[in-house]
Amino acid sequence: MSDIEIARKAKKKPIQEIGAKLGIPTEHLLPFGHDKAKVSEAFIKSLAKNKNGHLILVTAINPTPAGEGKTTTTVGLGDGLNAIGKKAAICIREASLGPNFGMKGGAAGGGYAQVVPMEDMNLHFTGDFHAITAAHNLLAAMLDNHIYWGNELDIDIRRIPYRRVMDMNDRALRETVVNLGGVANGFPRETGFDITVASEVMAILCLATDLRDLEKRLGDIIVAYRRDRSPVYARDLKADGAMTVLLQQAMQPNLVQTLENNPAFVHGGPFANIAHGCNSVVATTTALKLADYVVTEAGFGADLGAEKFFDIKCRKAGLKPEAVVIVATVRAMKMNGGVAKADLGTENVAAVKKGCANLGQHIENVKQFGVPAVVAINHFVSDTDAEVQAIKDYVGSQGSEAVLCKHWAHGSKGTEDLARKVVSIVESGSAQFAPLYLDDMPLFEKIETIAKRIYRADEVLADKKIRDQLKQWEEQGYGNLPVCMAKTQYSFTTDPNRRGAPRGHSLPVREVRLSAGAGFIVVICGEIMTMPGLPRVPSAESIRINRDGLIDGLF
Amino acid sequence: MSDIEIARKAKKKPIQEIGAKLGIPTEHLLPFGHDKAKVSEAFIKSLAKNKNGHLILVTAINPTPAGEGKTTTTVGLGDGLNAIGKKAAICIREASLGPNFGMKGGAAGGGYAQVVPMEDMNLHFTGDFHAITAAHNLLAAMLDNHIYWGNELDIDIRRIPYRRVMDMNDRALRETVVNLGGVANGFPRETGFDITVASEVMAILCLATDLRDLEKRLGDIIVAYRRDRSPVYARDLKADGAMTVLLQQAMQPNLVQTLENNPAFVHGGPFANIAHGCNSVVATTTALKLADYVVTEAGFGADLGAEKFFDIKCRKAGLKPEAVVIVATVRAMKMNGGVAKADLGTENVAAVKKGCANLGQHIENVKQFGVPAVVAINHFVSDTDAEVQAIKDYVGSQGSEAVLCKHWAHGSKGTEDLARKVVSIVESGSAQFAPLYLDDMPLFEKIETIAKRIYRADEVLADKKIRDQLKQWEEQGYGNLPVCMAKTQYSFTTDPNRRGAPRGHSLPVREVRLSAGAGFIVVICGEIMTMPGLPRVPSAESIRINRDGLIDGLF
Repeated sequence: MSDIEIARKAKKKPIQEIGAKLGIPTEHLLPFGHDKAKVSEAFIKSLAKNKNGHLILVTAINPTPAGEGKTTTTVGLGDGLNAIGKKAAICIREASLGPNFGMKGGAAGGGYAQVVPMEDMNLHFTGDFHAITAAHNLLAAMLDNHIYWGNELDIDIRRIPYRRVMDMNDRALRETVVNLGGVANGFPRETGFDITVASEVMAILCLATDLRDLEKRLGDIIVAYRRDRSPVYARDLKADGAMTVLLQQAMQPNLVQTLENNPAFVHGGPFANIAHGCNSVVATTTALKLADYVVTEAGFGADLGAEKFFDIKCRKAGLKPEAVVIVATVRAMKMNGGVAKADLGTENVAAVKKGCANLGQHIENVKQFGVPAVVAINHFVSDTDAEVQAIKDYVGSQGSEAVLCKHWAHGSKGTEDLARKVVSIVESGSAQFAPLYLDDMPLFEKIETIAKRIYRADEVLADKKIRDQLKQWEEQGYGNLPVCMAKTQYSFTTDPNRRGAPRGHSLPVREVRLSAGAGFIVVICGEIMTMPGLPRVPSAESIRINRDGLIDGLF
Repeated sequence: MSDIEIARKAKKKPIQEIGAKLGIPTEHLLPFGHDKAKVSEAFIKSLAKNKNGHLILVTAINPTPAGEGKTTTTVGLGDGLNAIGKKAAICIREASLGPNFGMKGGAAGGGYAQVVPMEDMNLHFTGDFHAITAAHNLLAAMLDNHIYWGNELDIDIRRIPYRRVMDMNDRALRETVVNLGGVANGFPRETGFDITVASEVMAILCLATDLRDLEKRLGDIIVAYRRDRSPVYARDLKADGAMTVLLQQAMQPNLVQTLENNPAFVHGGPFANIAHGCNSVVATTTALKLADYVVTEAGFGADLGAEKFFDIKCRKAGLKPEAVVIVATVRAMKMNGGVAKADLGTENVAAVKKGCANLGQHIENVKQFGVPAVVAINHFVSDTDAEVQAIKDYVGSQGSEAVLCKHWAHGSKGTEDLARKVVSIVESGSAQFAPLYLDDMPLFEKIETIAKRIYRADEVLADKKIRDQLKQWEEQGYGNLPVCMAKTQYSFTTDPNRRGAPRGHSLPVREVRLSAGAGFIVVICGEIMTMPGLPRVPSAESIRINRDGLIDGLF
């Protein structure tokens, strides 16, 4: 059966029953239909003195077209922990609406390790992204309105980095001229739209600890500069209060369930390139207060996703992850070993062994943060025993362990071994998490640290303009921020075609941006697209409600 | 106490209890929090054979700055009918998000005749408008994407009437150039954004009878023309199915409650100028299947709102209204009689009498549709007995009755007389509703009929281009559509300053537009703004969550 067929057969329990598993009283679950709910702010506040559960990060090798199944493994591990008697919850990101109309929408997980309701999660869900779009665009409207009515703040209309957003793949909006039409409409200027997940408001919502922190960070957004290059903040436009009101409900984490009726928090979804790519801090900290084990995931491969999870999210939210699961597949190891996608069905132990270099470097990297790692081999039916054994042997030689997982086919029964391994790591108390670099390291050194220790580059290339910009931000008091790397997810290098574990490369920095509200410096290495387009034949063309009232074409 | 103070003290019942009053089983109420729910499509389908209740329209004189209280009276009458033992529900429109950040947001009703939860209704509510924004903009993205990938449909990029929408007052987006940035981004062209309530998708959602009808109407939207002037439809871009999927949940009517815990359907909110300005057909027809009395309202004054309610909504949905309540106030009669707003506190019986001409023409007009009318005098504390009596005497002289209503101060106790009067009209069986004109009347004659019989104009002025356009649409098969008049709401004429009941004027038609999906011809008489701007000091600047966790500044 396909993912969607399995999801449609799910025997969902009322969301109140799922909440009850975590001790959330019905009155503190704000329902959205019968299978989704938000956890109330008041209830979250009441948990402050609860002990925290154990935090587990699921990350992966560099993604390949073969697919790794990171979310599937997150779901499977959560179900596996519940199956072996632990009180566990998972925390994952929300899906973006727009891209579903280009390529088919994604399941949250796959096979018998999925989160439901799948349709809602690929459509409006609980409206969080719409709220983010509205809050973001309110600030943009107030900005142009301020200029229209006399521009008291003296904004230079050529220096307005703040764009508008829409949760849609719409390349027509990438570059626009607005305020046309004469005196009644404003002062024409160039600007454009990003997709909502690329909004700084999204990153802020995912890093804010509560509504007050949210409001403060929204106020910190730099919307424009004056001719003297001094920044104009959202606070200067008095937009922070109304933006917070628009986001009040969106700040409450969403609770849904896995196919095995275990609790799943699905909340927030910042880009994994120009932002940090993890679900919200509020969801993770709430889950930690309610469950003994919390399994979460980070975007892309471990070089980007885990590094940002550790250096941005954990650093800022004071989280202490105790184990990392690195997802790998035989097929992806083969691709890293040079096999073409068409040939993945043929046994090739040598290629698996060769490709393991990529996995090995991720294992080493994760250990640099002081967190023990276990490898989850996400099983595909075409995998041979010899290929699986090759990964196990390799990982063993690196001082870690690889566990074969069959959650796609068997749900929690396929991840009980992994769950037990994770519990044994946690119970060993061996984790000693620390970020890769200290807050007070100069910004350029932070970039170099990541480039050399994680990507294994020899050097960082950046022209004087970029280095001067970093120095200027340090002088303005932003030197203590972490850096948020935006580079291809397909390679440790900036060249998406260089698989494996390349050495002797350099990291060219093309641009740096200050996300003062989110609280990081974005370091752009290569082309980063913040407004996708639709393909020649968008999936939207075949999406419709069929005669049985079910949605066709979305998956 | 202010409206917001009264609303905050409301003793809301769980929405399931409100639904139970109408016989809606809990499983067919899709909850949004504890005080809002959507009524399931399956349940609505199951009602097909139920007998319909009685439909009452609340409309008003031409609005004045003094305020008439049309929604307040709709709420009050609904509560009044329930108070005298009738099973009654009200149907009103949803509020638009964007304008709340310019001027203060509105209560739904006022005083002790309100619908709650007020905050939600002025913010994201159940996400319907966000869904409409997404569906609208998906079609726009698919349109530009089609051109980008080769323009097989041969669209003339200079002839694209379909714009984008945003639920925000953002004048910067009124006129834009998109697709800038070179080959990768598309073919530059002029376009712009309207506010979401002005979307044809909004009008369609409010007129569609079910999901199939919705999909058909969405497919009928004309997005562009070819060089030979032949239309390109949303259906040609294969966008109708995915738009319907985005709107599936939004099509389900929302149930909330009045301060007296009576059921209120709040669903849809098309512009009252370029669209028909009523809540959704689905909400009204559902309410009619569940309640014995359904009180609904139409936008603006009766010349625009009631006329469109009758000639567009009732005609298309086969509704048979049985009574009309025309709301008037002493203060508004005085303004129509020439008194300035500052002098409204002083008794002025002569001015009241003079201003009654406006009311009288609306009474006459409503009767032309075969529906009996009663006047509700919405009481203000400053009204004197002599002024109230002057209205009563005038209305009596017109063969109708005026009933003094004190729902603002006393809730249902203040409208029991009105409720009894409405019941007696309905039970008399005297209504014989018919639209003002037949479907097969030529389009220009339809405009003339409304202009002469409703506005009392002597003539319609339209240049040859407009008349030719109407003829062309008749040849293309659109001649049977009703016309949707877009003119100022402040006067029977196109001059907003001409109060009372002016004669001897003419109606200049500036532009005509075809809303082929919604199913009407928009006739624009005067300046119509479809994207508002923010004022110099937007209310957003003072909106914030206060120390008690309540929202300040929104009302």
